[in-house]
Amino acid sequence: MSQSAIDEYARCAREYTGNPSSTHPLGLAAGQRLDQERRKTASLLGTKPQNVFFTSGGTESDSIVLASLLKSPTPGEIVTTAIEHSAVLEWRKTLESAGWKFITLPCPNGYLSLETLENAMNEKVRMVCVMKVNNVTGTVQDTKAIAKLIRSKAMQYGRPIHFHCDAVQALGKVPFRLEEEDIDSAAFSAHKFNGPRGVGILYNRNPSVTALSRGGGQEKGLRPGTENLAGICAMNRALEDALASLDERYSQILAFRCKIQTTLKDIGLKMLSPESGTENDFSPYIVCASVKPVPSEVFLRVMADKGFCLSAGSACSSNAKGKAEGVLAGMNVEPMDRRSSIRISCGSGTTEEEVDLLCEALRTTYKELGYGR
Amino acid sequence: MSQSAIDEYARCAREYTGNPSSTHPLGLAAGQRLDQERRKTASLLGTKPQNVFFTSGGTESDSIVLASLLKSPTPGEIVTTAIEHSAVLEWRKTLESAGWKFITLPCPNGYLSLETLENAMNEKVRMVCVMKVNNVTGTVQDTKAIAKLIRSKAMQYGRPIHFHCDAVQALGKVPFRLEEEDIDSAAFSAHKFNGPRGVGILYNRNPSVTALSRGGGQEKGLRPGTENLAGICAMNRALEDALASLDERYSQILAFRCKIQTTLKDIGLKMLSPESGTENDFSPYIVCASVKPVPSEVFLRVMADKGFCLSAGSACSSNAKGKAEGVLAGMNVEPMDRRSSIRISCGSGTTEEEVDLLCEALRTTYKELGYGR
Repeated sequence: MSQSAIDEYARCAREYTGNPSSTHPLGLAAGQRLDQERRKTASLLGTKPQNVFFTSGGTESDSIVLASLLKSPTPGEIVTTAIEHSAVLEWRKTLESAGWKFITLPCPNGYLSLETLENAMNEKVRMVCVMKVNNVTGTVQDTKAIAKLIRSKAMQYGRPIHFHCDAVQALGKVPFRLEEEDIDSAAFSAHKFNGPRGVGILYNRNPSVTALSRGGGQEKGLRPGTENLAGICAMNRALEDALASLDERYSQILAFRCKIQTTLKDIGLKMLSPESGTENDFSPYIVCASVKPVPSEVFLRVMADKGFCLSAGSACSSNAKGKAEGVLAGMNVEPMDRRSSIRISCGSGTTEEEVDLLCEALRTTYKELGYGR
Repeated sequence: MSQSAIDEYARCAREYTGNPSSTHPLGLAAGQRLDQERRKTASLLGTKPQNVFFTSGGTESDSIVLASLLKSPTPGEIVTTAIEHSAVLEWRKTLESAGWKFITLPCPNGYLSLETLENAMNEKVRMVCVMKVNNVTGTVQDTKAIAKLIRSKAMQYGRPIHFHCDAVQALGKVPFRLEEEDIDSAAFSAHKFNGPRGVGILYNRNPSVTALSRGGGQEKGLRPGTENLAGICAMNRALEDALASLDERYSQILAFRCKIQTTLKDIGLKMLSPESGTENDFSPYIVCASVKPVPSEVFLRVMADKGFCLSAGSACSSNAKGKAEGVLAGMNVEPMDRRSSIRISCGSGTTEEEVDLLCEALRTTYKELGYGR
């Protein structure tokens, strides 16, 4: 969380003591600030304020959309990919119990092909759920082409198909504007762009998405609970900062990724993230590689001793062993490489010196473990 | 949010940059702090760490428990009261659609009688949901006696009955220790005891309560999403402060309530909150009265102009018109009094001088509007 976001949080928590839903003066002041923040978020995302719903994070934003399927009187089919975040994939069991068919499409090399998607489409499909940037490998999906395909299918079947996009790893990191997309709903998480944890956004333009319970009716009943105004203010501050510096940071992180990739290849390691492409193909913030035959945890432990914080797959997956391996399996990565996968993420505070030290450490570690050149 | 909670939030947000679920050094440090905070919360609540789940607030804590009913293969009956918060009552529609019978018991004068509850019990009841402190009138339910009745019924029927308690208005305000209660799950909200908004606790000891989706598996899969460590630390700081000063504040707020009640009665207004009782009967933090025949909004507007922030019912209800009236209807309060209801809440920062000014303003306002003595 950036210092400016922390400062904004503290300032708003002190200034707005009223509940934004209260109708007394302190409540109205908080409510007005909330409206103002919603307009700001909408403008930063490239959409209208009425499509912005504040949530507690990316997982909840995904869940609101997926849970709404449970309210449908007749179950249908949901098409998603095998490389989605567990925030989406873990809905399988509950939706299947409710009679839904939950289809996960394979993504060789990390990409969903339009042909694969087209083959999965049929008249029973009510929702398509494809993430923008993959959290394990950084691959970027062509959501514009996917939306186009979905719209043409919806036209053909004569019934709407909802397109939900988990864009948690996209916002503030890669170029992404809702006004240029044809997405019905999208999930965002504040802490991915140096905002606070426990705050997120659900973009939704489809009125048929409704919550299981309206609770106190906040966020038009889509996400009840007293609004976390200080958190929302801090998120917007962070988002504004992230978008203002996006291009500059993007170029810098891309240069870092280049160095890291060159080192990995030079050592003789296999890239599991794309080796080439444009901003439409991968996010430079995430690099995934295989340190075969060294198991991930062995390599990571040595790197940790040297002061480097790397991951095997996503942090979320450590609570559910094998999840990152699941994403890699969905990309048809062979088992040996999956068990040896490491993920390197650069942040907005990463320096060139740190990247150079990292590259050196990657080289020496692999050698110390008996491999590499 | 107290200044000490704001400071704690800022300190933790700066100090713990790692994701508590990551296995690298920065993640492990955050994870250890999270464990430590869970033990602290457990100790402050009077339970074991494994029963503590961090959530985004009271509404979500209630929702996790109620949503878990949707996973039951055969629907049954849920017994609750007509004066619950909308975080509970708004589950009616979705649960009924899923085949559940949703029974709301009347609470004359704000209390659920054991006789009424006993008459509603039958072999199909799987869950009983009764709030500890009502958010509109401050009435306190005898959850110990309610639990005893539920246990005896469960014994009789030979099947477990889950007892959930929304204790959002209890924690940090009235004496409440989980170790003295026989509750299966309970909801708490940090901002009710000067902690941050967007942070709450679900106490749960029943392993059959499971989430609709495990997501990334955080909080043992009961509440997925990256843990809001800074928010949790700030909540614990606020809770610790609130509990340490509970007795002292309680006596003070009780004295304030006495003054307010005396004034209200003296003016000729009808109390909708209890007029007498012990800490087992009402919370002194909330006073509800009727300014009949003046409509609530007229009275509140005049009071607001004089600098007093009062409510008609709960803040949450302003998003769903008539909800507080619903609570009062569930107490058998007549329509005229419901439409003229005002709610006065004291906070930990309320001073005696403010209370005196409030009493004077209540008196003059009612007179200015053509009533009172």
